[in-house]
Amino acid sequence: MPKGGRQLRLGVFFNPTGHHVASWKHSGAQIDAGINLQHYVDITQTAERGKMDMVFFQDSVAVRRANIEALSRSAQYIANFEPITLLSALAMVTKNIGLTATASTSYNEPFHVARKFASLDHISGGRAGWNLVTSVQDAEAQNFGRETHFSHAERYERAREFAEVVKGLWDSWDDDAFLRDVKSGLYFDKEKLHTLDHKGKHFSVKGPLNVPRPIQGHPVIVQAGASEAGIELAAETAEAVFCSPNSIEVAQAYYADLKGRTEKFGRTPDDVKVLPGLSPVVASTMSEAEEKFDEMQSMIDPIVAKEILATVLGYVDLSGYDLDDPVPELGETNASKSTVAELTTMAKEENLTIRELAMRVAGARGKLVMTGTPSHIADFMEDWLSNDATDGFNILPSVLPASLNDFVDLVIPELQRRDLFRTEYQGSTLRDNLGLKRPVSRYNS
Amino acid sequence: MPKGGRQLRLGVFFNPTGHHVASWKHSGAQIDAGINLQHYVDITQTAERGKMDMVFFQDSVAVRRANIEALSRSAQYIANFEPITLLSALAMVTKNIGLTATASTSYNEPFHVARKFASLDHISGGRAGWNLVTSVQDAEAQNFGRETHFSHAERYERAREFAEVVKGLWDSWDDDAFLRDVKSGLYFDKEKLHTLDHKGKHFSVKGPLNVPRPIQGHPVIVQAGASEAGIELAAETAEAVFCSPNSIEVAQAYYADLKGRTEKFGRTPDDVKVLPGLSPVVASTMSEAEEKFDEMQSMIDPIVAKEILATVLGYVDLSGYDLDDPVPELGETNASKSTVAELTTMAKEENLTIRELAMRVAGARGKLVMTGTPSHIADFMEDWLSNDATDGFNILPSVLPASLNDFVDLVIPELQRRDLFRTEYQGSTLRDNLGLKRPVSRYNS
Repeated sequence: MPKGGRQLRLGVFFNPTGHHVASWKHSGAQIDAGINLQHYVDITQTAERGKMDMVFFQDSVAVRRANIEALSRSAQYIANFEPITLLSALAMVTKNIGLTATASTSYNEPFHVARKFASLDHISGGRAGWNLVTSVQDAEAQNFGRETHFSHAERYERAREFAEVVKGLWDSWDDDAFLRDVKSGLYFDKEKLHTLDHKGKHFSVKGPLNVPRPIQGHPVIVQAGASEAGIELAAETAEAVFCSPNSIEVAQAYYADLKGRTEKFGRTPDDVKVLPGLSPVVASTMSEAEEKFDEMQSMIDPIVAKEILATVLGYVDLSGYDLDDPVPELGETNASKSTVAELTTMAKEENLTIRELAMRVAGARGKLVMTGTPSHIADFMEDWLSNDATDGFNILPSVLPASLNDFVDLVIPELQRRDLFRTEYQGSTLRDNLGLKRPVSRYNS
Repeated sequence: MPKGGRQLRLGVFFNPTGHHVASWKHSGAQIDAGINLQHYVDITQTAERGKMDMVFFQDSVAVRRANIEALSRSAQYIANFEPITLLSALAMVTKNIGLTATASTSYNEPFHVARKFASLDHISGGRAGWNLVTSVQDAEAQNFGRETHFSHAERYERAREFAEVVKGLWDSWDDDAFLRDVKSGLYFDKEKLHTLDHKGKHFSVKGPLNVPRPIQGHPVIVQAGASEAGIELAAETAEAVFCSPNSIEVAQAYYADLKGRTEKFGRTPDDVKVLPGLSPVVASTMSEAEEKFDEMQSMIDPIVAKEILATVLGYVDLSGYDLDDPVPELGETNASKSTVAELTTMAKEENLTIRELAMRVAGARGKLVMTGTPSHIADFMEDWLSNDATDGFNILPSVLPASLNDFVDLVIPELQRRDLFRTEYQGSTLRDNLGLKRPVSRYNS
């Protein structure tokens, strides 16, 4: 039992065939997952059967820009359902699980984003979450009239204003604005409609939003910022944060840092839940689990691995290097600064070739992989929860549906036995699941 | 039996509580319809039980801008589900009926629109339709960083380019692009991926789209343009057209005009289906039907009626006029030119006051109302179908769900008896319903 009786919060990341880069070739994967609706129905219902807090869809507004040889050999970030339409459909076949999707503040308008997530929140009975990202690729810029992506500083400035506008629009209508009173002929109370009238550096949005106030007040705001600007924005506005620490020490430092920054924004440490990514490879013995992982690793195409490495490092050009060259020095790139620093340091310390670093990074895209028995995995999670390293995890199943089935059938029961995870949903909204307060409207506080 | 055995195509327009402006006060309406998911499930399933071709959601990206007294007394274009999220949900509880929503080319990006409708098409098994509009309100402009709406000419120029980009993006992947071949390690055939690389006056969109080619090839493109520029665009790109003729003569002229223009764009008259709006008020006797309509009319609030009139005329300012003043002369407005001309001519010929014109226009927003028995309504529809006035109708139920139940239970069986309407769906896609060809990819023709 963890101190204070805290329990884990568990999200699950749905990369169509699984998080592992070679997952599409695995016998446990749904090979046409990207566009197979029944697959998503099944895995979302599996996650709900496991009482998980939320499912999460990553997104970018472009086909991953890569050399065509690498691209045609991988199944991720290529072509699949648009996540908000998909989540609206999945809302109809689930009851409790949260439904979170990414939307970029760089290539969207705040009115559209506020509206879509408000609508999803109403459709799902209060289960919508918005993962706010600023995008990283020129490929996305080029689908929206630009040649290059916004600079790091500019996109975070834009993101901050974007989030302010979205939250303001969600408060357009008071919760009790709609009278629908036939006798007086009044459909709504005009005092309870608020016009935002935002005029800022990046956006001018008059409002009001043409959707009633969301069931959750505001859909849950999720982020994954790891740079200085990213952590600041998360401390100010995020309610759940995905992160990618590769050790408990890094996780503890991030946890303390992020939570410590909340107070200056008038928030409490408990207002933001930290959910590191974790890709568990589970089997009944350790050696079986290791075999499972090795099998997946052996399926990685080196052409793809090299390209993933270039992508993770910020869409750098590695075409001039051989797979067996040492990892070169990189200047400033347009990727997450923390990721670049972590990987280049690792390569230097261990004297890795491009192939070696690429194979290590590509499998789980640099995220934390944990192989072991259900008990090992539960020990690991309990250790992090009990030692101020996390509030839970964002589970990245290597192969879908197989690895999710393993996690839900083998690991979750072990967590439940230890009282580290719920056996029944506490409520019907994503806020209920995550233990987050319902925001009071800015016009009523 | 109509000549050539032609049958009607029937869409249905879902304004939340019904098409009649006072419908929300009617006992047959779902009073909280705008945000009541079960209501939409019920009425969509009712339309499908009636074997109708498609449901259709109008949209604007703003709360209707009106004086607050009028606004607070009406339920339309205020606050409700965003239509594409709603249609994705409705796809899960239906099998055959088409799912069509409006998206504006003035306040959207073509990449987003192409993507959402492609995704909806995959989710629904090929039932998506996009109603292309150019928007009419400054209120919409002001939610997207502009002070005023684009001019008529500019927005149509933009719309034309927008549609070209969207169609190009839908062809990004050949139908058989995805190999998913574990043996060769190839997920897709690189020769079957196409990059649009569009650089135009209004948009620069590189592509490709990150959704596989839609099940229908392209989702069905719907329009409602009635101006010269609107009819040209419809002749070039629309596959179904909503229109609002108030007599068979006007309908015949429009039908001949639109179909006659298709050839110069390399299309045939049959490539575009004409669907005039029709709001049937059905009862077992004519006098009962008239009573039904009079009851609804008696519920109209004159404050709302005057504002609807101002809106229909192009958001003109009538605040300086009394309800009993004659209808004033109007210069050029930013509304559909044909609507303004039709209404001001009517007012002049019949010497109407603002109140009289307003009450006439407000009830069904200037659309055609037909009161009568099932047999009367069927006679009317048969007459138009047999005399080159139409390919079908877009039914505008006055009150939802009541008027839709009446139509499906009383009128459709009468149409089926006359062999004017299907008794079973011919196929599973919206194109199958409407009798439209599946577009060949621009890269394979």
